[in-house]
Amino acid sequence: MIFSSTLLENAVNEFARLPGIGKKTALRLVLHLLKKDIDDVKNFSGAVLRMREEINFCSRCRNIADAQLCNICADRARKDHIICVVESIRDVIAIESTQQYNGLYHVLGGIISPLDGIGPAQLEIDSLLKRVDEEKTEELIFALSPNIQGDTTIFYISKKLKARPVKITTIARGIAFGGELEYADEMTLARSISNRIPVENYVGNKF
Amino acid sequence: MIFSSTLLENAVNEFARLPGIGKKTALRLVLHLLKKDIDDVKNFSGAVLRMREEINFCSRCRNIADAQLCNICADRARKDHIICVVESIRDVIAIESTQQYNGLYHVLGGIISPLDGIGPAQLEIDSLLKRVDEEKTEELIFALSPNIQGDTTIFYISKKLKARPVKITTIARGIAFGGELEYADEMTLARSISNRIPVENYVGNKF
Repeated sequence: MIFSSTLLENAVNEFARLPGIGKKTALRLVLHLLKKDIDDVKNFSGAVLRMREEINFCSRCRNIADAQLCNICADRARKDHIICVVESIRDVIAIESTQQYNGLYHVLGGIISPLDGIGPAQLEIDSLLKRVDEEKTEELIFALSPNIQGDTTIFYISKKLKARPVKITTIARGIAFGGELEYADEMTLARSISNRIPVENYVGNKF
Repeated sequence: MIFSSTLLENAVNEFARLPGIGKKTALRLVLHLLKKDIDDVKNFSGAVLRMREEINFCSRCRNIADAQLCNICADRARKDHIICVVESIRDVIAIESTQQYNGLYHVLGGIISPLDGIGPAQLEIDSLLKRVDEEKTEELIFALSPNIQGDTTIFYISKKLKARPVKITTIARGIAFGGELEYADEMTLARSISNRIPVENYVGNKF
């Protein structure tokens, strides 16, 4: 792409550096901003910069936070004896958006993956173990990726917690609502049969 | 989506305001920027704001410009007796990227479209007519959208220029290179037959 303006070219190149944004999309976004009021563009660039400069990580759960503690940890109404262990901030947002969970979180910052050079030391595992002790946590719910790395991480942390009186669970795996049986992979289908649940326990049943 | 940080939420909302960017994509982009160095994010937000604040429109052709004249109009090496008339800045970038055109441009800012309330007065038509007189333009090449609005615009401007000694042409319409005949629409195919060109004039032929 050949530009007749360096200012335009710089803005397009910056957008094109974002993941999944090609040069053509970047140009479309920049030309959209060019047509907007200066105040709108100031709000856009200000919000992005302020987010990066001022955001903290919660000292308790490592979630994103505007202050020293995140809104969730600071909320006295939440059950503080249950911790849901997740990989990333994105997972916290996904679970919060269901509006069904009322406990706390712990963001590991990833999962154990030796091939990618990520061991327990790179993750927020020590801080989790410390929390379990200090906060007298009653239950840890693992909500990690359903793959070998996720299972390894669950196994590693569970082993470390063997001596502690904490219940360890993992979110249910199975056929998704609206999912078609025939399109499910064999692993999921096989596990959903071996981990079958009595119909009387099946939350959501209406009969 | 429920966020535990207002800073994050604001940044996501600003991104989600861009065309074609949904909430999930916005979150992905913001989390990407969150992981970047502060200087990278400063470059991003600075480039966007500077582009909007400092960019000009060329006083001659209405293209985007860093100074009073755009780089193309300021370039003495370009043929200044040919003007290519386009709808938008985007079209200038597309034609420049071919590196085949060495004349000047005139950006109309749209095409005549009564249904959208766009008449000749909303477009840069008067400035084009003035240029043709002042610059003693020899040829106007219309590179507008191949639809009724584009044709109306060409017709309107041609009529205004009837008395002037300027050659008026439009870019060739036809079957695109690599295009399949059977998938071409009837209008394009019919016009490409009636506007057929002698093989000796067919630029690019190698026999």
